[in-house]
Amino acid sequence: MCEMTIRGIAVQREVQPGDPLTELITRSLQSIGQNWQNGDILVVAQKAVSKAEGRIVHLDEIKPSGLARRWAQRYGKDPRFVEVVLQQAHRIVRMEKGILIGETLHGFVCANCGVDQSNTEEGTAVLLPLDPDESARQIQRSILESCGKKIACIVSDSFGRPWREGLVAVALGVAGLRPLLDLRGQPDRQGRNLTATLPAVGDELAAAAGLVMGKAEGIPAVVIRGFRFEPAQSSGKALLRAPENDLFR
Amino acid sequence: MCEMTIRGIAVQREVQPGDPLTELITRSLQSIGQNWQNGDILVVAQKAVSKAEGRIVHLDEIKPSGLARRWAQRYGKDPRFVEVVLQQAHRIVRMEKGILIGETLHGFVCANCGVDQSNTEEGTAVLLPLDPDESARQIQRSILESCGKKIACIVSDSFGRPWREGLVAVALGVAGLRPLLDLRGQPDRQGRNLTATLPAVGDELAAAAGLVMGKAEGIPAVVIRGFRFEPAQSSGKALLRAPENDLFR
Repeated sequence: MCEMTIRGIAVQREVQPGDPLTELITRSLQSIGQNWQNGDILVVAQKAVSKAEGRIVHLDEIKPSGLARRWAQRYGKDPRFVEVVLQQAHRIVRMEKGILIGETLHGFVCANCGVDQSNTEEGTAVLLPLDPDESARQIQRSILESCGKKIACIVSDSFGRPWREGLVAVALGVAGLRPLLDLRGQPDRQGRNLTATLPAVGDELAAAAGLVMGKAEGIPAVVIRGFRFEPAQSSGKALLRAPENDLFR
Repeated sequence: MCEMTIRGIAVQREVQPGDPLTELITRSLQSIGQNWQNGDILVVAQKAVSKAEGRIVHLDEIKPSGLARRWAQRYGKDPRFVEVVLQQAHRIVRMEKGILIGETLHGFVCANCGVDQSNTEEGTAVLLPLDPDESARQIQRSILESCGKKIACIVSDSFGRPWREGLVAVALGVAGLRPLLDLRGQPDRQGRNLTATLPAVGDELAAAAGLVMGKAEGIPAVVIRGFRFEPAQSSGKALLRAPENDLFR
């Protein structure tokens, strides 16, 4: 029997640009009598990382394009916000019925290219981190340097998905573990090779953490303990499907 | 700070048709000195539920259609297996490059309509449960009757998804909690209404359990403790997007 524990770490105040996010998280953890352990997995909400990194756009500095203005007018949106979304898109996947799904410059497919206006100052919007893997690596390194412990780190965000309602958290940036395991070729209990087992553990870890984080609750970080993984250098991009395998362009 | 625990329950032997699955799970839980507690969430793998319910097809009884034979020949598959998949489909979503994604009779969109040949006897395939919600309710009722405890139950399966590699567990059947929460209208920390927060907690709970279940490890059931939920009658179908909102037909 294996047991995992999932603990939310509340940070005392709203994260501001330039904040030493890892230090804030570590201090919060220590304030409840806990500390980092080797093998911990820290999941941090993209929004907190982006804010600390200053990935904030002031909408009054944005000049909306014709496309942004037309779309915004049709669906009652802020044209400056729509323009920011379009600027973050490598390509538009769907743009209909008031829903805009794009593939971001990094390669993530999500609504509004991950640009968000909630939990941020009026007149601003928050972008995804520029390089979520690097963000995860920096957090991982910072904990190693300050506490001497080797952890893995995931930067997560909540995405919608086709055919299913609601949002689930997924892994954007990953440091220290493989977010996609390849168990093909391992025998099942009848001794036959499993043909299609590729658990996206990075996304499942993010989802588990998502249960504890709440947009209304101020818990931007979660520690998962008891999930055994092989330390490895990797990337959140391992979870992105190559275009030639994408049946839903 | 809130802490969730996630514990896998190994069942001693392969589940067989007619097995009293809930009893097997309860006995395994008790064998490690544990017992059900009010508020527990039990996640059970669809494969175990389906086997106990006898949802097994013998491929030598299947007469493949022309469509099944042509597809199977082109991609090196068993035409009888393909025929079973087609019979489970309400509609075909994508059928190309050797990948068959269908919407099942229940409404789930997944590869091969959820029909599976792994971890089952040679020459057989396992279907999804006929009514996963009812399966979840029966498990929930059985635990209430035998142990007097009120739990929630999720019947889960691992699905692939567009644009992202790998499989993540999702909720098929649900009893006892709302798998989709509607937090719209609640203020964010700036006091503005959140506009798009609909966490699919049923899927996130399934994903968390998926980290502990392993297809090669014989852990078909997982107990999640410490996730606060409001007891409610609901259905896994709350997680299915209505056709008019589906941009990826």
